[in-house]
Amino acid sequence: MRVAAYGAYAADRPLQPMHIERRVPGVRDVQIEIAYCGVCHSDLHTVRSEWPGTRYPCVPGHEIVGQVSAVGSEVERFKIGDVVGVGCMVDSCRVCASCAQGLEQYCERGFVATYNSPCKDAPGHTLGGYSQRIVVDQDFVLSIRHPRAQLAAVAPLLCAGITTYSPLRHWRVGPGMKVGVVGIGGLGHMGIKLAHAMGAQVVAFTSSEHKRDAALTLGADAVVVTKNAKEMKPHARSFDFILDTVAASHDLDAFARLLKRDGTLCLVGVPEHPHPEPNIGTLIFGRRALAGSLIGGIAETQEMLDFCAENGIVADIELIPAQRIDEAYDRMQKGDVKYRFVIDAASLER
Amino acid sequence: MRVAAYGAYAADRPLQPMHIERRVPGVRDVQIEIAYCGVCHSDLHTVRSEWPGTRYPCVPGHEIVGQVSAVGSEVERFKIGDVVGVGCMVDSCRVCASCAQGLEQYCERGFVATYNSPCKDAPGHTLGGYSQRIVVDQDFVLSIRHPRAQLAAVAPLLCAGITTYSPLRHWRVGPGMKVGVVGIGGLGHMGIKLAHAMGAQVVAFTSSEHKRDAALTLGADAVVVTKNAKEMKPHARSFDFILDTVAASHDLDAFARLLKRDGTLCLVGVPEHPHPEPNIGTLIFGRRALAGSLIGGIAETQEMLDFCAENGIVADIELIPAQRIDEAYDRMQKGDVKYRFVIDAASLER
Repeated sequence: MRVAAYGAYAADRPLQPMHIERRVPGVRDVQIEIAYCGVCHSDLHTVRSEWPGTRYPCVPGHEIVGQVSAVGSEVERFKIGDVVGVGCMVDSCRVCASCAQGLEQYCERGFVATYNSPCKDAPGHTLGGYSQRIVVDQDFVLSIRHPRAQLAAVAPLLCAGITTYSPLRHWRVGPGMKVGVVGIGGLGHMGIKLAHAMGAQVVAFTSSEHKRDAALTLGADAVVVTKNAKEMKPHARSFDFILDTVAASHDLDAFARLLKRDGTLCLVGVPEHPHPEPNIGTLIFGRRALAGSLIGGIAETQEMLDFCAENGIVADIELIPAQRIDEAYDRMQKGDVKYRFVIDAASLER
Repeated sequence: MRVAAYGAYAADRPLQPMHIERRVPGVRDVQIEIAYCGVCHSDLHTVRSEWPGTRYPCVPGHEIVGQVSAVGSEVERFKIGDVVGVGCMVDSCRVCASCAQGLEQYCERGFVATYNSPCKDAPGHTLGGYSQRIVVDQDFVLSIRHPRAQLAAVAPLLCAGITTYSPLRHWRVGPGMKVGVVGIGGLGHMGIKLAHAMGAQVVAFTSSEHKRDAALTLGADAVVVTKNAKEMKPHARSFDFILDTVAASHDLDAFARLLKRDGTLCLVGVPEHPHPEPNIGTLIFGRRALAGSLIGGIAETQEMLDFCAENGIVADIELIPAQRIDEAYDRMQKGDVKYRFVIDAASLER
């Protein structure tokens, strides 16, 4: 099946309209007509070969929402017309210890990413959500229970949402806890909304004075502009958990010092250039931890979507046609988006 | 009360015999005739001003064992003749959240260290265990239940023992777990013994080929010489917990990569020069943590001493007279000690 898509043939070429092949649904497959696809920084890094190993043609996109248009004979959980989502993974080994525990994101053989992973389908690697249609094994398809009108704003939950939800849950964020969220971008704005909805006291950290009001609107109880030492200091040793969503190289000690004893500073972004080495004394003298977390498992992604539906949580988005993706990437690099671009897949017909 | 001690009057002068004052025991004090005092790297760093803030005269020593020779009127837990120990702390604020939880080592106002902390007694700062006698509040005195013949080898448990015991317990090391201990020195050799006694599978990591047999004797199930990549590789993603006792700057990623998902690499030494910055991807792609841990609380130190007495665990030591302390420091700096020097306090009379 040929479907319209938007992708790149090489690192140094802009994204452009193309046609790609999708497989005929197998017995356990769900065929989805894509309505919207969120735009993640990973898309940009991959399509422009800023990360090693990009396979071309490259069709990015792993924040996918749409409607089921066909199901295989063994598919029981989905039917035609269902509103569904697909996130960063479309398969995993299913037998390793992590897969057995529903933590497919840590699959010991490596999960199959929604784009740029080797696969049997043409052209030999997976192609993502900047396209009209996708066919995915039912075990990697999520149910969406949000009102239909919110669908575009649901898309970013599939990566930005789960990437922040999973560590907040893993480190048991809830009422009575003081939680920091560093960075108010695609991930951070979701982190603020989610931590707030989980009942924590939320402090947003930003390097941008002008994001102060926006952070409060998102649900932060307080905002700290990180370059103001006077604002940072009163928070010393007061946080149970800090979720750091900033991938750019920065000083981790400034946040580690704000943790209580036994607190954790959790990073969710891999920096292009290493962060300055953390002060080990800051860890030792407070039994603090520096940790990392990667997206979330399928079961937890469904839990997150249901949590968001129940709590009326969606991303703040800017809807764009696929034709404006390069412009969107440029704006993302400048941090000029509140807070996530989402591609309207209807534009792919043009 | 004047007592003989061994200490330094300045950073650039050798340790020498001196006389110091000990307070007359107050109503809650325990007066201890010191029998032995272990020699910790902290002693060396402090007395030679390798760390900032040394107060002179400096009498180091915080691995103290001896016999009670007097008690205050309100002391109920100890009586004359009891064999007791004193570790790194002699007081704390007692009211902060950490103290309230028995974690005096993380006292939010800073615990009173056994030496080099400001105090009311002459000369205005605490003086440690390289001395004949010490007077300590009963709440910071530990009971020792080991056979009397082992007393010298018990001394290092008060710092090296608790520094390794506390993180092993905090991260719930026990049967069915694979645990690494990096470095086979004063701390590491205790870490191996303790993790083994807790029922874990223990792998010792050393940069010294010649320590291989010794590590097995200490209780390691396997030994890895870290410079041999071929020996490291088979252990990838297999450890639940790794206790890193090496304070010298080294590559942390080599050990982080050996952790399973959700594993923790715990450091107990502050490096003089920073470790190379850790790879954040290694943390993120396995939800791994890099953490620190500081000695242990008083209740946990008693628990550790009792655990060691029950399991027949003491340190491997080399007993020296105080007069050989500078030579001992020089050998420690070369790693030439198996595995802890202990000063025989009887030598202080000479």
